Amino acid sequence: MADEQQMRSAMQAYIDRFNARDGAGLAALFADDARIEDPFGGTMIVTGRKAIDNFYRQAVTMVDRLELAAPIRTSHGAAAAMPFDIHLKAEGRRMVIRAIDVMTFDAEGRIIDMKAYHGPGDVEMLD
Amino acid sequence: MADEQQMRSAMQAYIDRFNARDGAGLAALFADDARIEDPFGGTMIVTGRKAIDNFYRQAVTMVDRLELAAPIRTSHGAAAAMPFDIHLKAEGRRMVIRAIDVMTFDAEGRIIDMKAYHGPGDVEMLD
Repeated sequence: MADEQQMRSAMQAYIDRFNARDGAGLAALFADDARIEDPFGGTMIVTGRKAIDNFYRQAVTMVDRLELAAPIRTSHGAAAAMPFDIHLKAEGRRMVIRAIDVMTFDAEGRIIDMKAYHGPGDVEMLD
Repeated sequence: MADEQQMRSAMQAYIDRFNARDGAGLAALFADDARIEDPFGGTMIVTGRKAIDNFYRQAVTMVDRLELAAPIRTSHGAAAAMPFDIHLKAEGRRMVIRAIDVMTFDAEGRIIDMKAYHGPGDVEMLD
């Protein structure tokens, strides 16, 4: 099972690689058959190597930066969670999306499942 | 389905009732057949009205206070998540446990599932 330190490092890498616009590096954190639900309860599930690669190739072009809102939390199992703020610009307006990602890890420490919690009310327009 | 505002209110009530040492009020936020995994990956599952009532009756005697670490997040589904710090004293020592709770709601806005993410490394001894 992935240990606490592995999970914490992978989640910090998720933040850092977004901020380095490293789409390939982000995708590499995931197992080939991982499942991404972002946002939770939305209509889109991203799954499989090719879809995950495409998802992060696009995502890094849309996001200005990710900022941890409080320290990463792990668990007594193979999952961890972190609260962060996504700063981005869309249609000329700056906004922040407040999210919490819960990630589940496989035995090799790769993300096998990710659920992103953010709703319509978690979006704040900055101008 | 529980709406965003219902979920946000229930989660804020969870914080407030802990801080008011209102164990019965906390238990009342849950459906009778709710399932609580705290911590996620631990050995204990709390489920059923009587077990939930007992769990929170005890919990409020052990916790000094809960403090939101960043705003509550909801989702596009029937679940929401929040990061908070649990301040408590155990064996004469003050400590903080950094946690993220993910709560799933039933159609009436009661919590039907709760998973608490915190690992051994999320405990900080304050003295």
